[in-house]
Amino acid sequence: MTHLVPASSIIPDVEDNTERPHMEGESEKESSVVSPRGRPFFVAVHVGAGYHSPLNSKAYCRAMRRACMAAASVLSKGGGRTMDAVVSAIKVLEDDEITNAGKGSNLTEEGSVECDASVMDGLTGAFGAVGAAPGIKNPVEVAAMLAKQSLAGPLPLGRIPPIFLVGHGAREWAIKHGIEAAKDAGEARKYLVSKRAKEQWIHYTKMIDTYNTQEVQRKQANTLEIRSCAKTTAILQETSAVKIDGEKTFAKPAHVEDLVLDTVGAISVDSEGNISAGASSGGIAMKVKGRVGVAAQYGCGCWASSKPHSEGTSVGCCVSGAGEVIIRGLAACECCSSAQKSETGPGPACQTFLSRMMESQGDFGGTNDAGILLVQLDASEGNRATTRPKLGAVELVAAFTSRSFGVGYYGSLMKAPKTEIFRKPQSDKVGLFATHVNNSSRSNDC
Amino acid sequence: MTHLVPASSIIPDVEDNTERPHMEGESEKESSVVSPRGRPFFVAVHVGAGYHSPLNSKAYCRAMRRACMAAASVLSKGGGRTMDAVVSAIKVLEDDEITNAGKGSNLTEEGSVECDASVMDGLTGAFGAVGAAPGIKNPVEVAAMLAKQSLAGPLPLGRIPPIFLVGHGAREWAIKHGIEAAKDAGEARKYLVSKRAKEQWIHYTKMIDTYNTQEVQRKQANTLEIRSCAKTTAILQETSAVKIDGEKTFAKPAHVEDLVLDTVGAISVDSEGNISAGASSGGIAMKVKGRVGVAAQYGCGCWASSKPHSEGTSVGCCVSGAGEVIIRGLAACECCSSAQKSETGPGPACQTFLSRMMESQGDFGGTNDAGILLVQLDASEGNRATTRPKLGAVELVAAFTSRSFGVGYYGSLMKAPKTEIFRKPQSDKVGLFATHVNNSSRSNDC
Repeated sequence: MTHLVPASSIIPDVEDNTERPHMEGESEKESSVVSPRGRPFFVAVHVGAGYHSPLNSKAYCRAMRRACMAAASVLSKGGGRTMDAVVSAIKVLEDDEITNAGKGSNLTEEGSVECDASVMDGLTGAFGAVGAAPGIKNPVEVAAMLAKQSLAGPLPLGRIPPIFLVGHGAREWAIKHGIEAAKDAGEARKYLVSKRAKEQWIHYTKMIDTYNTQEVQRKQANTLEIRSCAKTTAILQETSAVKIDGEKTFAKPAHVEDLVLDTVGAISVDSEGNISAGASSGGIAMKVKGRVGVAAQYGCGCWASSKPHSEGTSVGCCVSGAGEVIIRGLAACECCSSAQKSETGPGPACQTFLSRMMESQGDFGGTNDAGILLVQLDASEGNRATTRPKLGAVELVAAFTSRSFGVGYYGSLMKAPKTEIFRKPQSDKVGLFATHVNNSSRSNDC
Repeated sequence: MTHLVPASSIIPDVEDNTERPHMEGESEKESSVVSPRGRPFFVAVHVGAGYHSPLNSKAYCRAMRRACMAAASVLSKGGGRTMDAVVSAIKVLEDDEITNAGKGSNLTEEGSVECDASVMDGLTGAFGAVGAAPGIKNPVEVAAMLAKQSLAGPLPLGRIPPIFLVGHGAREWAIKHGIEAAKDAGEARKYLVSKRAKEQWIHYTKMIDTYNTQEVQRKQANTLEIRSCAKTTAILQETSAVKIDGEKTFAKPAHVEDLVLDTVGAISVDSEGNISAGASSGGIAMKVKGRVGVAAQYGCGCWASSKPHSEGTSVGCCVSGAGEVIIRGLAACECCSSAQKSETGPGPACQTFLSRMMESQGDFGGTNDAGILLVQLDASEGNRATTRPKLGAVELVAAFTSRSFGVGYYGSLMKAPKTEIFRKPQSDKVGLFATHVNNSSRSNDC
């Protein structure tokens, strides 16, 4: 494994744990899930771009390790498709309250959880998504079932199967298809709300109420300060005590210090070189009810393309960050395309893409924070011009503009998943981590 | 104006009405909305790809004429942006019960209207969309307001403005922003349901009930005919009497003979060459509750790009048809890109794009019907390498794989909008209509 960029440009928060698979809080069962003599595989996951409090680093890393191992379990046994492995990984992240997906998601203005998720299968191009869906335990399961059903042909009487469901329609469809979900709208309002997310919501609600009161007072005083106030109190982009009108009004509780903007994600590659990717998200904090973000949008939150070598390299990616910027950049699709065409490799391609995407969004409001996790099969492996590549080495890239980006990965030849919270010392640069992982020397074993 | 393809390849349903602006059912006021001495403009609209019953051709054409004139009224006076013109045109089409958008939309399985809509401003790239939204009189108004708000910077306290809202969240946001909508979920269930759509829904519901009954009987008889039955009874792709199990069981009432799969659309160009596009849709008939189709998806239902000549030609398009196929092709974005790069002009580019997109969807179920309406500023006009082009001539392209595609357009030098329902005699070919419209000779008047 090689860091293609100087270590100084990013600061890993948690040391390499390749040799220490047994971490605090993990059971023996969890860390021994993967068969040592299974098929070759590669898995990568992330827990979002934004700001991850150092207090929670271990919890994030633990979640990523468990997600990697869940996906590896599917792939090493050879019984599941890459999309199933992606679903397994993302379900672990959704179920873990530390992430902004599934249980523990950021809350809407109204205080409930509404989730986005999508998956894409690189071999067939099948895609499924749910948006602003309340009351579904694992939104990624619905996305995957929609993608699979789209491959099964028309519904009875020629009806076209849906690939994107939103709101309570998605919840009701989940129930009909045996996926765990709240039974009605009333239950859905409280479903998946964690104590931590509720405390963060109370904190932000108080701030907004105070802001609104101050704004009324300012209007009554007929001042012209409203605009400048709005600019200096970007609460959802701050990470510690926040100023309102020049005063430190609210100090956040330490456990709500994180600011993870959007989405978790996973990419998996099987022994045949097939690739899938997926994303899942609770969206931005205090979002408007019904708001759909990047994780549900085709071409934006995830992309995967399993191609014969003659048509380019197989590649998959998932994207996280301030959703609207990423949607306008069709980020996941475009980033994969850039990586495939690049002569300097996927790392510089992602870095350049991210830099340009952020620069081009000058007219729009909000933060430009984003993170891209990309896996590309090594183009130099083999010379099979007309066949799909077998899994050999992969290039893994994590590029991000946010203050931190949490990434985990696991290949057949690694003893355990490796996880890191990357932190970026310079706010105006794109952080880049790139590594080359070999997965093939055990390929004769299976 | 020139037909770039032989007239024999498509059969216009309604004759050229350029010289006859006063049509049956139109008032003097409607046809005199556009100032004869206004600014140069160009507007194009469509009423969907699918099958338009000849019985309804006049009603479709009348709706398109009124839509063109509404947009022209905004642009010729110079007071509105191109996005406002698109909204004006689409509102006319949404309000007209003959189209599958707004009032009169296809109904869901549950018998209610849920609409998708989006708009894109080519100059700024601003985009807004609503998906599966119940109870909003003009969904395109919400899409446009979201797009405009995204340009206004962050919400109070740094929150990112949403650009895509779905379900009841979209309806509630509309009410808060003064847009006409049903006041609660109960009212929303009946909102915008037309008599015609309700009759179509009753017709399809009976067929599905019969199919389900037959399927139960088949299962009881332990036969293996279920699959072949499903294939031969594609009710939503048939246009007249429909066979169930080999028998003509239901004849559709004449007034529900149309099968407009998805979306109306509009593209407008102002005197400066700025371009915007939009789409609005009631979705496919008998869709699953919460299903979002092409008209709401970024890069899929509409696209617009106003560029200086040095960076390519300004282009806008809107796409209609079987949504899921179009979503997977990122059709609107990709088609504009193909047209801009094409050396043979936008017509062949759209034809080739559509043909390839449909071929590549072999693994997926459903129909491959689609229609693309595209407007491109004439690349040969002027030589202003670094400035945005003034509106001179435009290329208009209508390419479609469906049996019919209804299109209308209106330029500054035309006495009245021209509207046609194109019909395609050969089912296996892409129908193409392309024309060159000059709009510039009156440019010195204003």
